Amino acid sequence: MSVEAKRIYLDHAATTPVHPKVVEAMVKALEEGWGNPSSIHTEGRAARKAKEHAREQIAQLLGADPAQIYFTTSGSEADQWALLGIAQLFKGKKNRIITGSIEHSAVRNTAKRLASEGWDVQWLHPDNKGFYKQEELQKLINSETACVSLMYCNNELGTIEDIKKLYDVSNGAIFHTDAVQGLGKMPSPIPMGVDLVSVASHKINGPKGVGALWVKPGIEIPPWIAEASQERGKHAGTEAIPAIVGFGMACELWYENRETYRNHLKELKVSFLQELHVLGCEFILISPNESCSDSIVNLRFTNTEAEALLLGFDLAGAAASAGSACASGALKPSSVLLEIGLSEKEANECVRFSFGPSLTLENIKDSAKRVAKVVERQRQVASGK
Amino acid sequence: MSVEAKRIYLDHAATTPVHPKVVEAMVKALEEGWGNPSSIHTEGRAARKAKEHAREQIAQLLGADPAQIYFTTSGSEADQWALLGIAQLFKGKKNRIITGSIEHSAVRNTAKRLASEGWDVQWLHPDNKGFYKQEELQKLINSETACVSLMYCNNELGTIEDIKKLYDVSNGAIFHTDAVQGLGKMPSPIPMGVDLVSVASHKINGPKGVGALWVKPGIEIPPWIAEASQERGKHAGTEAIPAIVGFGMACELWYENRETYRNHLKELKVSFLQELHVLGCEFILISPNESCSDSIVNLRFTNTEAEALLLGFDLAGAAASAGSACASGALKPSSVLLEIGLSEKEANECVRFSFGPSLTLENIKDSAKRVAKVVERQRQVASGK
Repeated sequence: MSVEAKRIYLDHAATTPVHPKVVEAMVKALEEGWGNPSSIHTEGRAARKAKEHAREQIAQLLGADPAQIYFTTSGSEADQWALLGIAQLFKGKKNRIITGSIEHSAVRNTAKRLASEGWDVQWLHPDNKGFYKQEELQKLINSETACVSLMYCNNELGTIEDIKKLYDVSNGAIFHTDAVQGLGKMPSPIPMGVDLVSVASHKINGPKGVGALWVKPGIEIPPWIAEASQERGKHAGTEAIPAIVGFGMACELWYENRETYRNHLKELKVSFLQELHVLGCEFILISPNESCSDSIVNLRFTNTEAEALLLGFDLAGAAASAGSACASGALKPSSVLLEIGLSEKEANECVRFSFGPSLTLENIKDSAKRVAKVVERQRQVASGK
Repeated sequence: MSVEAKRIYLDHAATTPVHPKVVEAMVKALEEGWGNPSSIHTEGRAARKAKEHAREQIAQLLGADPAQIYFTTSGSEADQWALLGIAQLFKGKKNRIITGSIEHSAVRNTAKRLASEGWDVQWLHPDNKGFYKQEELQKLINSETACVSLMYCNNELGTIEDIKKLYDVSNGAIFHTDAVQGLGKMPSPIPMGVDLVSVASHKINGPKGVGALWVKPGIEIPPWIAEASQERGKHAGTEAIPAIVGFGMACELWYENRETYRNHLKELKVSFLQELHVLGCEFILISPNESCSDSIVNLRFTNTEAEALLLGFDLAGAAASAGSACASGALKPSSVLLEIGLSEKEANECVRFSFGPSLTLENIKDSAKRVAKVVERQRQVASGK
């Protein structure tokens, strides 16, 4: 395969290319909306207006009231804020926090930190497709439960959790969901009854450096930064206006095109799997068959090794990943895959492919060929042929 | 005065217009460097390279080793990290933290938080020009002192603190300086012996949403976010690449043009004050005459009221501020001005003008005319003429 072949990016769950209209909106914000939103003069007001417009765009995609949305500097920060905020609210009143063993590291690490500070942190374990079970959650819930934090869509498997059912047994505990992988790609989790939702810009063709936390009316979440001046007293540091504006535009694009994008993603994923099948490239589907994101699929290629595959794909012009990007420097088998019952060896044979609306069916066919060829070559090497 | 008159921005200490070359670099990063720096494929490596290049550009302006620079999402976050990090390092070992009463709110609020957690926080009070005195600091230093945090250049007055002398009496306490207003505009504080330095992008014509903390080799600052994956285990959340790249370019521009910019700023400030004088617009200089930033001047206009002045300036096409932008929504007299001995009434007569290299001498003359006219009109109203 020619090294000049157009690169095909199949790692949209790690991050996404920035949409040209987002770049355009950011350039406008950099050129005309560079004022400090806290300033009272014209330049300050222009920046404030740009920020509030973005808040409305994000609210529209989430089906939320803009007044309940707080900007953060990342989805991870939104996750940390949610958990630490609830802990602060209930300190000395309730002492249990429930989260899941396949959550994003931002949630897991924050829960570990709270455990080290004396909180009774309980870990919900999923089934072998990554689904958290209502009855298992119910067993962990007690009257001491301050917080339940369970993600909407798993970033490594694509598993869509039944948030409505999980919320229903949470017995009044504050329910937080990390919806970073769900934003735009599936209906908003807000109508399902959740109390706090984390989202991020760079997973939907917006820029890095901005996320948001939605907080249900009536919940008085403590500030992320004590005695802060920004975000109505909840956050400190001059706001990242260009990134915020870009996030807003990305939300507007995903809102306007939500049906088209979702149908297209479904088509891309089906086509990718069919194409591999047609090419005779055998795989085991690790992601669930149903209730799975159309933008994520995790496949196991027996008799291969994920890191070598990824490097091979990269040389062939296709980008994919093993585990989440946040942990991919670690070269350790994905803890999520171990949690759903794979052995270390099996986990090291798994690759996540994730899709975005900018990909074409042609790209998908091309990339399946590249993937199949690299897998085949590795299997030949492994079998000593 | 025609409302169509070109606007003149004299509030560079609040934030600055983004340099066209910074916008250009950011657009390139948005279009070509949008990968996740944690990914191992080509797209990830491109983003990582862009990030590390920016770190080198920042290091060059600071006269530092790139390996000692950690990206943050704002100058405020860098300040908070510095103080909370040192507190964590010394918890149970030393219990005193010394900071100043005219620090930026990010430092003051963090110090108050530490005081509420049981730390013995001591406040150093400046003289009537905002200078912290070596002998006053010495009185507060004891063997229990974990941390001294004193800013390099005051954001409301322009006062340049004698960091070298203050450091010299700190007796081995970790010395942090908020150099957000000093970066680029004056020599780096690192050779003066400090241990930690906070800086921010948007004060030197870079974008909002990024800052940095420099940490002296040998100091093992705890992570800002526990068990974090980014910034060599010190920070979490996918990095704000476009903003980081913009910050890098802004640093390169300030480094390359440092002599020109500094001389130009000096000329602008002198010219502004001379022009007001020539126009017969009386003022009292609140900023110090010497050891003051060339980009900041705080003036008191007796028989006026700052908020009305600012609105008048704004209508006349000139942007300035009273106090820091972070507090300007508050409509309270600046606590910094009260701290240096002004009464509430006097503090409410003060305006901060701050300059940047993109201003011309022509702009300065124009803006002085606008300022003088608005001041004169207000004084006429106040005197019932």
